[in-house]
Amino acid sequence: MLEDKKTPLTPVSTLGEFGLIKHLTEKFALEQPSSSLGVGDDAAIIHPGEKRVVVTTDILAENVHFNLGYVPLKHLGYKAVVSNLSDLAAMNAVPTQILVGLAASNRFPVEAFEELYAGIALACQHYKVDLIGGDTTSSQAGLVISISAIGLQDEEKIIKRSTAQPNDLLVVTGDLGGAYMGLQILEREHSVYLANPHMQPEMEGYDYILQRQLKPEARTDIRNTLEELGISPTSMIDISDGLASEILHLADQSKVGFHLYEEKIPLDNQTISTAEELNFNPVIAALNGGEDYELLFTICPNDYEKIKNHPDFTVIGHAVEAQQGNYMVARGSHELIKLTAQGWDAFLKRQ
Amino acid sequence: MLEDKKTPLTPVSTLGEFGLIKHLTEKFALEQPSSSLGVGDDAAIIHPGEKRVVVTTDILAENVHFNLGYVPLKHLGYKAVVSNLSDLAAMNAVPTQILVGLAASNRFPVEAFEELYAGIALACQHYKVDLIGGDTTSSQAGLVISISAIGLQDEEKIIKRSTAQPNDLLVVTGDLGGAYMGLQILEREHSVYLANPHMQPEMEGYDYILQRQLKPEARTDIRNTLEELGISPTSMIDISDGLASEILHLADQSKVGFHLYEEKIPLDNQTISTAEELNFNPVIAALNGGEDYELLFTICPNDYEKIKNHPDFTVIGHAVEAQQGNYMVARGSHELIKLTAQGWDAFLKRQ
Repeated sequence: MLEDKKTPLTPVSTLGEFGLIKHLTEKFALEQPSSSLGVGDDAAIIHPGEKRVVVTTDILAENVHFNLGYVPLKHLGYKAVVSNLSDLAAMNAVPTQILVGLAASNRFPVEAFEELYAGIALACQHYKVDLIGGDTTSSQAGLVISISAIGLQDEEKIIKRSTAQPNDLLVVTGDLGGAYMGLQILEREHSVYLANPHMQPEMEGYDYILQRQLKPEARTDIRNTLEELGISPTSMIDISDGLASEILHLADQSKVGFHLYEEKIPLDNQTISTAEELNFNPVIAALNGGEDYELLFTICPNDYEKIKNHPDFTVIGHAVEAQQGNYMVARGSHELIKLTAQGWDAFLKRQ
Repeated sequence: MLEDKKTPLTPVSTLGEFGLIKHLTEKFALEQPSSSLGVGDDAAIIHPGEKRVVVTTDILAENVHFNLGYVPLKHLGYKAVVSNLSDLAAMNAVPTQILVGLAASNRFPVEAFEELYAGIALACQHYKVDLIGGDTTSSQAGLVISISAIGLQDEEKIIKRSTAQPNDLLVVTGDLGGAYMGLQILEREHSVYLANPHMQPEMEGYDYILQRQLKPEARTDIRNTLEELGISPTSMIDISDGLASEILHLADQSKVGFHLYEEKIPLDNQTISTAEELNFNPVIAALNGGEDYELLFTICPNDYEKIKNHPDFTVIGHAVEAQQGNYMVARGSHELIKLTAQGWDAFLKRQ
């Protein structure tokens, strides 16, 4: 759990709840002009000016969303922030502030909270967001992390899920399925370790997919890239639960259907080779794996020329009328395969 | 746990995570003019106009903050919202929106979530706040509730903890210690029930303190009352952790001290009689009990005439220079008793 196993451990009761919050948050400075008042009062204050305030919240539970057997706490803190900022990126908002709630059992010493907050601090620095509030409590069970993130944007620049039109092109950033294949490697090596703690984990050659799983990034860069290209997406969502599930969300909320081309789905070579090694179809990892934190959006067909050769983007399909449904066109056979939501469903897959 | 024990129970897996969120939130309408977009997209959108956005978050864990053995889920949902709105009231902000995160083990069927959300819905109606976002997940342990609440206010009307001055009067709303004495009765009757499930709980004569514990209200009404009286507090905090702890917070952040008069602390007759019955000092319940959700604030000495006979308010002390410290002047003896933070500290008192 802790990176440095020799750190002397301090029980949380030596600081108390208020002392712990103060200890963890006092090094966080406010950098955003919209952060008027941060941690320490009954509530924080944001000064949004003329902008709209965009808010999201995620709750992550131990052994459902993460396993502390192979996820370092620092990475967990970073990733918990990233998953929220990804939601803001999917609205085309600029992330500005976060609030952090933690419930943790007594097996977590002060040093564990420090590592978690070191990861949160790193994400705050990298994405230039301010920690402005939080709450920390004991729990009788494992660790639960709740993060709320706040962003700002002009009303006309916010992009929703509900505004795609038939014939719009479906575009994805980066590549997919890597985070899922990284998880498979981590779980395999953890099983080996549990069976024989003297075995060294074999992580070499998996660096990209392990990073996709352990230290994903939110695509907050895409907002600027699209602006430079003169493209305004007609709808957008982030890929946290797998491509299939996200396409169905866009379809449902925009009242359209989508045709997705299997051969167009962007996959990294390491995702493909690891999938082959584990006798797994990498397209399934992309469709149902989740946690890639890439963005999925639609654009007007007229914008195709602006985007077609850009390395950040891949056109993977197009929107159709709702009654035409949601299908993947299979590679080679061109068979139509119905898209189903087998996304990361915490209640179904991991209970 | 469930009010109607005969309800047929539906496992969450029949709805799935997305289905559950949709099912729980689809009846919540948006009423606040500042709520531009609610549940269902990557994030919610708030339109604050010229106002400042005030944000707070609380995380509540089973068997730390609540015991489902004697707290109905509907009350729990209501109270979880109230505790956040109380934080906004303490900033003098108008509550407008909430986001709800839930982590719950598989022992909670859909009907349990429905009851919890029924309580949340009741609080939303009563306080005219909109549910605009949330996240629901399974957990391997008990129930963890994380609520973030958003409010709006003009910059010059926001009241912080850090702006009290020496000689300001210390004022409290309502009465204190009731929620703590209510908890003692609930715990006593729960122990009796556990020892003999055929015993009927004796709740008669404890209605006021039980309501203080099970269905507390946030003092969002005080903002208007103070405005009508022409009083602008110089600092404010809500009483969630006990009077002593909150006084020390005001003192710490305003860099002053406080002298509190024991004989002035407002106690309800039922709080006093129950404390006598349980051989407990009701002043200790007020100082250290917590969960009263009253407001504690300071006013200029010149405002005394405006407030002195108002039934909602009691002047309980005054601010002094920081080096004079924080003391309670004992009833009768006038002995000075040092105030210490023995507030509701989740890590110390309930682990």
